[in-house]
Amino acid sequence: MLDSAPTSSIAARAPRSDRRSQLDALRRAFTGLDTEYPLADGTTAPRTYLDSAASTLRCSAADDIVRRALRHYANTHSTLHAGARIMTHLYEQAHEIVGRFVDAPDDYTTVFTGSGVTGGLNRMARVLAERRPERDLVITTLMEHHANDLPHRKHVGEVVHVPLENDPDGEAGRVDLSALRAAIDEHADRLNYVAVTAASNVTGIVNPVHEVARHAHAAGALCVVDAAQSAAHVPISVQGPDAAEALDVVCMSGHKLYAPGSPGVIVAREALFEGLEPQVVGGGIVDRVETDRYEITDALPEREEAGTPNLPGALRLAATLQLLGRIGMDLVAEDERELAQYALERFAAIDGLTIYGSHRLEVADRIGVIAFNLADLPHGLVAAALNDYFGVAVRNECFCAQPFVRELLGRAGNAGGAADGAECGPETQPGMVRASLGLYNTEQDIDAAVEALSDLAARPDWYREQYRPRLDGSGDWVHRSFEHPPEQAFSLEEEVDAWLQSAS
Amino acid sequence: MLDSAPTSSIAARAPRSDRRSQLDALRRAFTGLDTEYPLADGTTAPRTYLDSAASTLRCSAADDIVRRALRHYANTHSTLHAGARIMTHLYEQAHEIVGRFVDAPDDYTTVFTGSGVTGGLNRMARVLAERRPERDLVITTLMEHHANDLPHRKHVGEVVHVPLENDPDGEAGRVDLSALRAAIDEHADRLNYVAVTAASNVTGIVNPVHEVARHAHAAGALCVVDAAQSAAHVPISVQGPDAAEALDVVCMSGHKLYAPGSPGVIVAREALFEGLEPQVVGGGIVDRVETDRYEITDALPEREEAGTPNLPGALRLAATLQLLGRIGMDLVAEDERELAQYALERFAAIDGLTIYGSHRLEVADRIGVIAFNLADLPHGLVAAALNDYFGVAVRNECFCAQPFVRELLGRAGNAGGAADGAECGPETQPGMVRASLGLYNTEQDIDAAVEALSDLAARPDWYREQYRPRLDGSGDWVHRSFEHPPEQAFSLEEEVDAWLQSAS
Repeated sequence: MLDSAPTSSIAARAPRSDRRSQLDALRRAFTGLDTEYPLADGTTAPRTYLDSAASTLRCSAADDIVRRALRHYANTHSTLHAGARIMTHLYEQAHEIVGRFVDAPDDYTTVFTGSGVTGGLNRMARVLAERRPERDLVITTLMEHHANDLPHRKHVGEVVHVPLENDPDGEAGRVDLSALRAAIDEHADRLNYVAVTAASNVTGIVNPVHEVARHAHAAGALCVVDAAQSAAHVPISVQGPDAAEALDVVCMSGHKLYAPGSPGVIVAREALFEGLEPQVVGGGIVDRVETDRYEITDALPEREEAGTPNLPGALRLAATLQLLGRIGMDLVAEDERELAQYALERFAAIDGLTIYGSHRLEVADRIGVIAFNLADLPHGLVAAALNDYFGVAVRNECFCAQPFVRELLGRAGNAGGAADGAECGPETQPGMVRASLGLYNTEQDIDAAVEALSDLAARPDWYREQYRPRLDGSGDWVHRSFEHPPEQAFSLEEEVDAWLQSAS
Repeated sequence: MLDSAPTSSIAARAPRSDRRSQLDALRRAFTGLDTEYPLADGTTAPRTYLDSAASTLRCSAADDIVRRALRHYANTHSTLHAGARIMTHLYEQAHEIVGRFVDAPDDYTTVFTGSGVTGGLNRMARVLAERRPERDLVITTLMEHHANDLPHRKHVGEVVHVPLENDPDGEAGRVDLSALRAAIDEHADRLNYVAVTAASNVTGIVNPVHEVARHAHAAGALCVVDAAQSAAHVPISVQGPDAAEALDVVCMSGHKLYAPGSPGVIVAREALFEGLEPQVVGGGIVDRVETDRYEITDALPEREEAGTPNLPGALRLAATLQLLGRIGMDLVAEDERELAQYALERFAAIDGLTIYGSHRLEVADRIGVIAFNLADLPHGLVAAALNDYFGVAVRNECFCAQPFVRELLGRAGNAGGAADGAECGPETQPGMVRASLGLYNTEQDIDAAVEALSDLAARPDWYREQYRPRLDGSGDWVHRSFEHPPEQAFSLEEEVDAWLQSAS
């Protein structure tokens, strides 16, 4: 499990009982918790949102704070008028809050960029490749999503994928540290950095990132941590138990931190950027510009944040992380572990349901992400039926982590509805179903999903009769008669027309 | 002036009188119009926001629509659960609306990226450099902000800056088309593209972008238009009067289009991206990923939008542009021209006030941007005093367009408070003051600014006594006794603590 952020990093924390009440209040302060949709049986039901690993709902408490802040809105880069001064101050405060959330020391910088970790990881891959061009190899793991894999291939060069541990049941667990050490030894002279996810978006399994950092550092390499999937769920500290285990770069994703519309974040050692021209150039990063030369400021994070930032998004992310930090990620993680354990046990008891990855929390800790398949139904049909008959929102297919999903399907001898285990066809597409938790989820949500899955498991033939494959290679299944067209639920054009009509 | 979007592009437009009422209603639907600040004389006054060229206020009508849409929030990249299906549909609708706003034909794609034009212009510079690596030269103009200059220098190679026309008074006008043609002829073999701003962020002067496109195309080069400053103010169409005058790339900035927190946009010919690996790679852009190879989808805009998008921001921008498009940018531009004319005349009548750039709207059309200096006061002192004594928010210094500001200061023989015309020192920094308009501005706002400036012009010595230079090279001036610390106006930490207290 990840290290807890020292309590000193969030000043004057309230007593545990108060923080408990605050967390309970926060669970209800989200947009989209009371949304109802029509079901295939003609009724209407509230949706059960179990898709937070793809993107979390937005914290409305933080959004309300941002809306009040926007009464002062103006661009930064000036302190002479009040709005610009206030927004400049708030933007600085946002950087501080985000750095503090991951316990960043003074020699780290916090850079807002992109709309998830994809922007941050592409940026860091380019930066680190340019910093040490002779080191053209990156080690990552087999459990990465594409965002922590393809950027290293494109911008650095060769990527070596380290396999995973087997738990005593033969199930895939964390990154295999001895295989990692062997890979590091084998490629030490070319190794630029080790890029590792803090938690898998498929199995939810949490990696020992500080141990990974220690091994990387021993070989003169850096450690880049993709915290997209973990940051909202377990505490993370860029500082390890000792200096050798500190993380060099941590990337996070605003939209997976209860702040959709917020940017991604890089928290990294300042030294990694120093002396390199930024990858993105423009206004706000230059001391002087002539037509034939320009001088880039030394100041960080300014030099890595060319142009006007996504100010409302940065403030929203900061307000959200401040709420989480003050309540305590220890408490958030504790509750999620309990709920995830409950979900694992109830899911595992469903006939013919296979959960991928180790269930042994004592050897491979998990956040609330459970990928599974039902024996007799394709993943696309299960996801559709959960939505259409029960209002349960889950994701399916490969979760932008194809190599890992194929590996897990191969281990289980189960292709989630694919004809031959790993290949795509008009009717088949390897994949899984994934239920994932956010802090708004409850035991009732798990019960709703379990009830639904139990019904699918009990009557697979009946459900199969209700659906047909889309036959476009997507692996999607479509109900034969029930439709819920998205344009009937919401239309930007109609909303605008309604506003205009009320105004004219 | 730019071409009007054909009315056919916004279906079933309402009668002009209705559109007029709608525009009047829209003017009031912004966050931050009723904000009040303390003044140096001990009173409190509403702020007069004249800083829209840096960033516009946020349209609250569009934001309300987005908040309602977020009841359905989920990630895109799936259509099997209702929220994902609705958000995928809305995100597609957002692309369509933005493309329609600039009259994009079917063979153009609309890509959301970054948080302004900086991200889009860096992206396009990389893409076009990779597409035609033998063409390592870009022509731009002397009137560009850094975002439409530095990316071309960094990613493409040499940048040639074309000078500006002189109007009959010797004032700087639009790009000099004969100088442009000469530069194109001179560099035709190496010329990749001409990058030109649709309107200057310093003088507000509007460029003949379709003529620029025609000249670029004649030499086999492309035309990239930076519409950051123009798009909220005058209609723009990527289609010209004929095919030779079509714009190949148009970049816009959400935060200058009444949608802070929204991404920037690239609208470009699809063919420019085809066959090139995207600059940013990750999830959502790949058909298949193995550990040793990956195949990127052919679909646009998907392949240029790796990772999870800023969905709320994209929807906000689309809702805002749909409001503007339905009301009609013709009407918006008409009103702004009238108000800008009024402002120009009133500003010009102030003793010792120099307005930069041509005032002759018949030879160089302008949007509502006016950069100026007062004879006896440094720009940093003027900006501070307008804020501190009158609540008028303006920007000062070089507006991320240093070469152009220095050129204009040189022409006017006036350095805006700099000792020697163009060099910086502890007390001096060349620059100007800039008042800029958004559609919420009124004649009363202009009157407030004129009254304030007239008082400064009448009593420069008194104002100078109230201020001291900051002496940090910023060119800022600080009031000797009045303070309005930003942390007193708003604090994310205090807002969060207040929420937590109410919850515990």
